Amino acid sequence: MTAPALLGDAPARIASVGVAAFADVPRTAGADVTHLDWRPPAGGDPDLAWKLAELTGHARVERANEEAVARLLGVRPVWRDVRTARDCLPVLDDRATGERVLLHAGPPVDWADMCGPMRAGVIGAALLEGWADTPEQAQRLADQGALRFEPCHHHEAVGPMGGITSPSMPVLVVEDPGTGRRSYANLNEGAGRCLRYGALGDDVMDRLRWMADVLAPALREALRARTDGVDLRAVTAQALQMGDECHSRNTAASALLLRELAAPLARTAHGPDVLEFLAGNHYWFLNFSMAASKLATSAAHGVPHSTLVTAFARNGVEVGIRVSGLGDAWFTAPAAHVEGLYFAGYGPQDANPDIGDSAITETNGLGGFSLAAAPAITGFVGGTVDLALRTSRDMARITLARHEAYRLPALGGIGAPVGIDLRAVLDTGIEPVVTTGIAHREPGIGQIGAGLVHAPLECFRGALAAFPVPA
Amino acid sequence: MTAPALLGDAPARIASVGVAAFADVPRTAGADVTHLDWRPPAGGDPDLAWKLAELTGHARVERANEEAVARLLGVRPVWRDVRTARDCLPVLDDRATGERVLLHAGPPVDWADMCGPMRAGVIGAALLEGWADTPEQAQRLADQGALRFEPCHHHEAVGPMGGITSPSMPVLVVEDPGTGRRSYANLNEGAGRCLRYGALGDDVMDRLRWMADVLAPALREALRARTDGVDLRAVTAQALQMGDECHSRNTAASALLLRELAAPLARTAHGPDVLEFLAGNHYWFLNFSMAASKLATSAAHGVPHSTLVTAFARNGVEVGIRVSGLGDAWFTAPAAHVEGLYFAGYGPQDANPDIGDSAITETNGLGGFSLAAAPAITGFVGGTVDLALRTSRDMARITLARHEAYRLPALGGIGAPVGIDLRAVLDTGIEPVVTTGIAHREPGIGQIGAGLVHAPLECFRGALAAFPVPA
Repeated sequence: MTAPALLGDAPARIASVGVAAFADVPRTAGADVTHLDWRPPAGGDPDLAWKLAELTGHARVERANEEAVARLLGVRPVWRDVRTARDCLPVLDDRATGERVLLHAGPPVDWADMCGPMRAGVIGAALLEGWADTPEQAQRLADQGALRFEPCHHHEAVGPMGGITSPSMPVLVVEDPGTGRRSYANLNEGAGRCLRYGALGDDVMDRLRWMADVLAPALREALRARTDGVDLRAVTAQALQMGDECHSRNTAASALLLRELAAPLARTAHGPDVLEFLAGNHYWFLNFSMAASKLATSAAHGVPHSTLVTAFARNGVEVGIRVSGLGDAWFTAPAAHVEGLYFAGYGPQDANPDIGDSAITETNGLGGFSLAAAPAITGFVGGTVDLALRTSRDMARITLARHEAYRLPALGGIGAPVGIDLRAVLDTGIEPVVTTGIAHREPGIGQIGAGLVHAPLECFRGALAAFPVPA
Repeated sequence: MTAPALLGDAPARIASVGVAAFADVPRTAGADVTHLDWRPPAGGDPDLAWKLAELTGHARVERANEEAVARLLGVRPVWRDVRTARDCLPVLDDRATGERVLLHAGPPVDWADMCGPMRAGVIGAALLEGWADTPEQAQRLADQGALRFEPCHHHEAVGPMGGITSPSMPVLVVEDPGTGRRSYANLNEGAGRCLRYGALGDDVMDRLRWMADVLAPALREALRARTDGVDLRAVTAQALQMGDECHSRNTAASALLLRELAAPLARTAHGPDVLEFLAGNHYWFLNFSMAASKLATSAAHGVPHSTLVTAFARNGVEVGIRVSGLGDAWFTAPAAHVEGLYFAGYGPQDANPDIGDSAITETNGLGGFSLAAAPAITGFVGGTVDLALRTSRDMARITLARHEAYRLPALGGIGAPVGIDLRAVLDTGIEPVVTTGIAHREPGIGQIGAGLVHAPLECFRGALAAFPVPA
């Protein structure tokens, strides 16, 4: 309990703050040093620190955040339908617009700046739509500016990894019955060689065609047997009790969703094939989790003076956030590298930087924020059970609320930390943690690993700089 | 840290051992008392304590236990088939024997001594077999001695609650490919009104008939698509990562098993109906867990000098254990009352004492021994998350090994405590903990709750008294 005397004869009891290395010297001398994990607010930037002080405890900001959080938690995401993208996303309705538009993950990015796996997604989508017959033709179309790109997020949609969504692809329709608001996501292809990770080839294209021609109609028909739709909040809540964090581990949720529709799917024409596909796809629920999260965080968007982060998305080059009280602006930073575990034969030098809309789950309290629910995931993304528990605890320091339905069994059933507060991130210097897959940087290859990544503070600093202090 | 002086002026630091109340007096006076949770070996019985001392560390016993544990852990339970009971359990082959035999849960018990829910099972089975047309006729048959009863356990079979298994009922066939050994269990009826809980009525009988006529053939046909069968050890290991303890919570395992067979079941004639039934039965895996556990513990049975407990079963009147080195003898005690949560309108006064073969899962390291894997179960059986963790830790004090495949995520992935050691139970006074359902004591009603129950030390004392000290 006490250390050899450093200062005269009295035993020294030392607290250190700030740079961790400063604690090492007295500790080496045998002193009992308590190191506080503290960083100066806003990274020590005086202007931002001053603004942070003005916003902290500000009555209008607090009220706005209460309102935003209440809206987020008030959403009841229900899976209602599976439709063709062009039929429910007007921007993709090429019959009406005469344009060739593709949606992509993350903040806005144009063809010239896209990373390898996203370019592969564009090429695959152009082939799928019949806009091109070969990858070379598809690339030429893009080079010539014949394709237009928009973020999924601008259309209440989300897509994992490259997130490329084209007019003929089927999308999930998720609805909040209280408001009638809807969100959308493409369908999950499974593991292995997938377009979302930038894989290309006949196998990838054949599966995408099968998903549109067989899987989507079967799901649509089976859903008719569930007149109230499928309550995705209930599935997510259960899955958190079953080892999922509903971003990078969806094993339980996918099995629960299959259970929910197994009988009605068996009654459809291609039931056995569809069930075979679903039984082998342990990521199936990811896109549901994303659409449900988008629906919740969108509800919280646009509350004046709210510092709630309502989107966090990555395009493989940049990551960007949106803040409830800051309108439609994106605040971006270069995409970070993912710390993770690689498949045999690959390493960090092969990895594309952080990519995908799937971090929307983290803005909804899932993924890295619910890591304590999924200790087994550490075998896949790296880390230890202790890290999983600690991460969920840390995320509670940068969030505004505990989720009332999403609970963490390993932490005594406490609610998942939800509602990232721009102010808290910059006050603590704690970066939001995201569980994610790793795509190969070159187009055409696909997934090469999975891991953890942090949202860079730079996005948050940009947003704070733009945030007006209310009167 | 220090307390007011009790003995002169020196601050008192007190350790207390044995009766917990003795610690209260100095504690009330403000002393810092550390109470050791210790009970005298063998409950203070000098003869048993002496025998315990002789058996502790005895080289032949230690070697025998190593052998028994290795056999238990060496079993690979594979679900191979679904067959009619009379076709694979010779004792039930009424065509050959000309007898009317029923299997029941727990140690041997005759009609005259059976509890209410087990009697209801007998009546239901007699109706199902066409031995009687009315419950009154069935009861008369039993009263007249026209039915013969044998424990499931005497035939490598197990059955939950009443465990009544009759010739025409379908049974699961689980096999250890390394040895060809097999075990059996009837099929799980689901929740609500079930024969195993002593419910009677047309709904109960209709479902049992449907299970024999539709469900069993569909499962059998679907299993043919899995030429290697279904690896129940893999399903169990996964389910422990997903919030099941595979006795009273089987939600994840049942969903995984459904996922495994969904496509082949969809290809059978009544696929949708079968999938509907399985999707609604969150206990479906229980009987698989029991058969797999029976296969494992049976492999460990009959090792001379081994103190490993190879069966723990309850017939609703008595509970009994078998010990590897003690042959086929049962060591019994009166069945305990279950501490638990009751369905609305019922209470402890309605409860039948502890009943069923399902505690075989605890002898295999599951159920109460893996309670740390299933914190959510405390909402169903009572208790807290902390109790769940502590129970798995306590059970490690009375077991010989850690399971190599069954791991507890909330305890850092350590193996489930497995292999109850007769000596350790009596040395520590720690009773094995079992998660279980609660049946109404009157025949014809069914389940009224669920909870935790302890195996009474009396069985273990009886076994120790009978255990010969090797030379």
